[in-house]
Amino acid sequence: MKSHPLFWKSFSDFIDELDGIKEIIQGSDFLALDLEFTGLRKSMSGGLKNNLFDSISDRLKKMQENMMEFLVLQVGLCAFHWVPEARKWKYYAYNFNVFPSAEHGDLTFPCQVETMKFLLEHGFDFNRVILEGIPFLRPDREEKAKRSFFLKQKAILGQGPSPQRVSVPEKLKPLIVAISERVKNFLDDPDAGQELNLGDFTAYHRKLIYEEIHERFQGQMWVESVPGKAGETEILLHRGKEGLENWGKEPWKKLQNAFEFRKLIDFISSSEKLLIGHNMLLDLLHLEEKFHQDIPQEYGEMKHLLHTRYPKILDMKLVAEWGELADLFMDSSLKCMAIRLSKEPFQCAAVAPGNEVSARYEKKEAFHEAGYDAFLTGQNFLSVLQYLNHMDSMVLEVSFKSCLFPLALDFTPKSSLTILLTVLLLTFVSLAILLMDRMGLSWIFPFIALIVAGVLAEHGLPLPGFLLTLPVALNLLRTLYTVTLWMFRALAISVGVFPALNIAIPDVPYINLAGPDMSPDRSHVFHLKMPSSWKNQDIEELFSAVGPVQIAWIDDTSAYIALKRREMAAEALTAKIPHNDSLYQVTTYADFCAESLFDCKRRGEKRQKLEEINS
Amino acid sequence: MKSHPLFWKSFSDFIDELDGIKEIIQGSDFLALDLEFTGLRKSMSGGLKNNLFDSISDRLKKMQENMMEFLVLQVGLCAFHWVPEARKWKYYAYNFNVFPSAEHGDLTFPCQVETMKFLLEHGFDFNRVILEGIPFLRPDREEKAKRSFFLKQKAILGQGPSPQRVSVPEKLKPLIVAISERVKNFLDDPDAGQELNLGDFTAYHRKLIYEEIHERFQGQMWVESVPGKAGETEILLHRGKEGLENWGKEPWKKLQNAFEFRKLIDFISSSEKLLIGHNMLLDLLHLEEKFHQDIPQEYGEMKHLLHTRYPKILDMKLVAEWGELADLFMDSSLKCMAIRLSKEPFQCAAVAPGNEVSARYEKKEAFHEAGYDAFLTGQNFLSVLQYLNHMDSMVLEVSFKSCLFPLALDFTPKSSLTILLTVLLLTFVSLAILLMDRMGLSWIFPFIALIVAGVLAEHGLPLPGFLLTLPVALNLLRTLYTVTLWMFRALAISVGVFPALNIAIPDVPYINLAGPDMSPDRSHVFHLKMPSSWKNQDIEELFSAVGPVQIAWIDDTSAYIALKRREMAAEALTAKIPHNDSLYQVTTYADFCAESLFDCKRRGEKRQKLEEINS
Repeated sequence: MKSHPLFWKSFSDFIDELDGIKEIIQGSDFLALDLEFTGLRKSMSGGLKNNLFDSISDRLKKMQENMMEFLVLQVGLCAFHWVPEARKWKYYAYNFNVFPSAEHGDLTFPCQVETMKFLLEHGFDFNRVILEGIPFLRPDREEKAKRSFFLKQKAILGQGPSPQRVSVPEKLKPLIVAISERVKNFLDDPDAGQELNLGDFTAYHRKLIYEEIHERFQGQMWVESVPGKAGETEILLHRGKEGLENWGKEPWKKLQNAFEFRKLIDFISSSEKLLIGHNMLLDLLHLEEKFHQDIPQEYGEMKHLLHTRYPKILDMKLVAEWGELADLFMDSSLKCMAIRLSKEPFQCAAVAPGNEVSARYEKKEAFHEAGYDAFLTGQNFLSVLQYLNHMDSMVLEVSFKSCLFPLALDFTPKSSLTILLTVLLLTFVSLAILLMDRMGLSWIFPFIALIVAGVLAEHGLPLPGFLLTLPVALNLLRTLYTVTLWMFRALAISVGVFPALNIAIPDVPYINLAGPDMSPDRSHVFHLKMPSSWKNQDIEELFSAVGPVQIAWIDDTSAYIALKRREMAAEALTAKIPHNDSLYQVTTYADFCAESLFDCKRRGEKRQKLEEINS
Repeated sequence: MKSHPLFWKSFSDFIDELDGIKEIIQGSDFLALDLEFTGLRKSMSGGLKNNLFDSISDRLKKMQENMMEFLVLQVGLCAFHWVPEARKWKYYAYNFNVFPSAEHGDLTFPCQVETMKFLLEHGFDFNRVILEGIPFLRPDREEKAKRSFFLKQKAILGQGPSPQRVSVPEKLKPLIVAISERVKNFLDDPDAGQELNLGDFTAYHRKLIYEEIHERFQGQMWVESVPGKAGETEILLHRGKEGLENWGKEPWKKLQNAFEFRKLIDFISSSEKLLIGHNMLLDLLHLEEKFHQDIPQEYGEMKHLLHTRYPKILDMKLVAEWGELADLFMDSSLKCMAIRLSKEPFQCAAVAPGNEVSARYEKKEAFHEAGYDAFLTGQNFLSVLQYLNHMDSMVLEVSFKSCLFPLALDFTPKSSLTILLTVLLLTFVSLAILLMDRMGLSWIFPFIALIVAGVLAEHGLPLPGFLLTLPVALNLLRTLYTVTLWMFRALAISVGVFPALNIAIPDVPYINLAGPDMSPDRSHVFHLKMPSSWKNQDIEELFSAVGPVQIAWIDDTSAYIALKRREMAAEALTAKIPHNDSLYQVTTYADFCAESLFDCKRRGEKRQKLEEINS
């Protein structure tokens, strides 16, 4: 087992560095994020398995049911800064090891054996995160914790309502009397010092003792529980009211500490930086659920919430899974994507470490450490961007940030002709972008440029200085093209034109936070209800008249059946398959969904009937 | 955080020492046991809180619901041997760190934050127990694991049924073709060596590759998954069938290993040694549930099962909570009991360490390490036994074991008179035991002895040689008394006369495994159904006519109310309290239990009605 004590971020480290971390975030061009959990899937044998033909809200329900009870153990953050002088991206990686604050009360959380073994084998220290993790508390718990702190304070100050006393059992009476006597002697003897340690007691005994001496000696002393040497709890008694006003400072500070990490998450959210993740839907849901509030049950509300919280996001898994670049990636896992991006036609983006943790990542891979995975996600993003723009040394001088503003190149028109030419040039560049981008005609750009230059020269027109030499012109055109394309892409990617989250349903690959989701054509999909004895072969036989099928089992007695020859759907519906039989029942996907909706309503009515029986 | 690498029992240590451990168990006079879990109570806010007036089966249901899902992390065992030569008890302590075997599949288990923090603060290493814990598997899982092992073996040997092939997605086809080609080249080239490592792939890719090369090259090679350097999984291909017969030896051994720890638990059970625990009901339930089978739902069956599995048990918590010694203990926790037993009138039993772990315990306390807690439980037992018998140096020569057989003292009758006197003496000793034991007349024994000796002397009877001197006689009598008493107690305690388990309901303190349980008088207890706005004060007012009450809240709208003046029960029932009101409802405890039973039946009928609606 590996151990990285140096790069452990415990609570005191965290507080010491918090301002610095915020500055780094504020100054960054974009952020990358990764989380580690105590588990990913509650039960392999449970009924809520993912299905190829889930709807998005089916899938989200399953995620909530199977995944959201696990704890977040590590939040990895990596901030990327463009350093123009060094012409490099500098990155600052952080591992925040977090654990619910004691104010959460007596919490029980699930652990998935596979996940825990996996994390431990990759150097994670579960012992330390439990004992020393940065404490956190959700706002709703925060209010509760504050209330109970004030109640406790009032009780210690003797201002609270006297609670009903627990009656002292017969066999403990001698103990309570003896302690009461000891306290009396101490208070009567002015030379006995300011404090009296009554020793170590169980919680029950402490309660009895507190109630007794509170009743007998109120106003003359105050008591508090202090930790003993061996982890036990001792009662410390203070004479008079001196120091009482100081009581609460320490516990209040401790309580405040539990809010600091959530405030950092809030800071990230309000910075409105582009946030990059790899398969980040689960990460965002956990951030919301652990540090803010429960995830809304209603899908539209959930989408709105995530979009408001993180307006600019990019899910790198989608880049490898879907869209124009997907064919270049065989495997969309973070590691495989990074390996792919280090080979032709890609090139690994050049980055330089900005802090201690990052320096370690430069020397050695640390897969599944949240900070490293966040860093790698960010680097993958840069490599992809670089590929998209055939980035060269000249373009690299333009920082990512400046791309989001009007071009700042030295290009001032000198005469009316140059203005015309500039307009023509920009139109030509835009057209070239369209042609090259949409139709893959990359040869057309230098070709047309040559023709235009040739035609202009033949007609003896007064060409502006910078167009006289063809190489200079070509280079400028190329730069303009590249920068404009980059700007176009960067805007599309980062300003939230398309904030999509991978959901891994084959025909609905993503959630679109900013607009309506895809509505896939499932006219070739059927729902089959059948006896539990049926196997794949039985289903294949039933559908043999309409060609091969894809079977997506829901449970032992039902499955979705997709025709591989989509065009056979109409035939399947009419004659080829007997729809109802004593043994089985075939329904179209659309009808099945409508029926489920109807069933939901019926279940509502049934519930009402049941309530009538109950009452 | 403390760390005890030396005393960690990982799987290989365990297997190396297993025979030795079994010998120690076999040769022991008694065993002490303690377990550590990932948690003790599922939810503090859940509905299943313990109530003062639970029935035993209520309480057991709550234990099963709240406690049994947690994992066992550590089994502590301490074997005690009486060593006559050294006149001392020797103890052998063990910490078995256990974790479910990988054959359990993808298991998810709950962790209670408080419990985990507590264990870690006391030196427990959660990281290591997850990675290196002794694997275990329940018998029902064992069968399943063996079946799937044989299926896998058959598949690798090419004897199994060909599974339905997963279709290769378009974008992965080039990969599969390339690998297939690589395998073909390797097989065609006899100089290419015996093995080919195809590299590291995801599980999905491996499946596709296996299926492809299995179909194309079956009989010419075989493949296996091997772990790569960085924890990834690589495909290793072997030419021909050489070495194939060896496949399975390693995984089979690994599978077998998962049964070894359960076999040790079986060995403890079948040794029929006296098994001592401290509040051991939960420990025994977990042993059964984790290493044997699910706990029967029916209470009688559960009792029978535990009694059969562990015929001789003693729960030390009961000694401090209930019975004749309870008044001497203010706190029945393990630690407080040990502290109490080191002071007057008790004396800490003298013990000597027998192995490395024990030697550590002699030097330093290690509370909440299962082996230490087991050791302390055993030592507490010896201290109590010593107190019960006013053990002195002479008695200590008699080992615990020999006490269970006829006395082996040098006491041979010389004449008919000495035989008569012996019988008289034994009768007298028995009577003295009865008097002293049952009536607390401890002064009567030396008093009567003096009178008897005096009477005998006065009548000039020929006293046998050893009775001539009173001190000698008294000493012998005392010894005889002590040994007989000890034998009596030891028999009663250890042979299973009274195998009771603490269940901590005030008027039903224990489960009696060997017979019927106590049936407490709850004629003074009432069930109250009330509005959720009611507080203790409202209830006290309602019952004010029949004196003070004890309130045991069940939930927001119901509670058990016990009259502190039991004799008022009849009055409460007749006139003093209006039983039914639009606001609340008072029922006697007996009526409420009967109604609950009736409700259960009605719920059954309701379920039937619901099914009718459903169908």
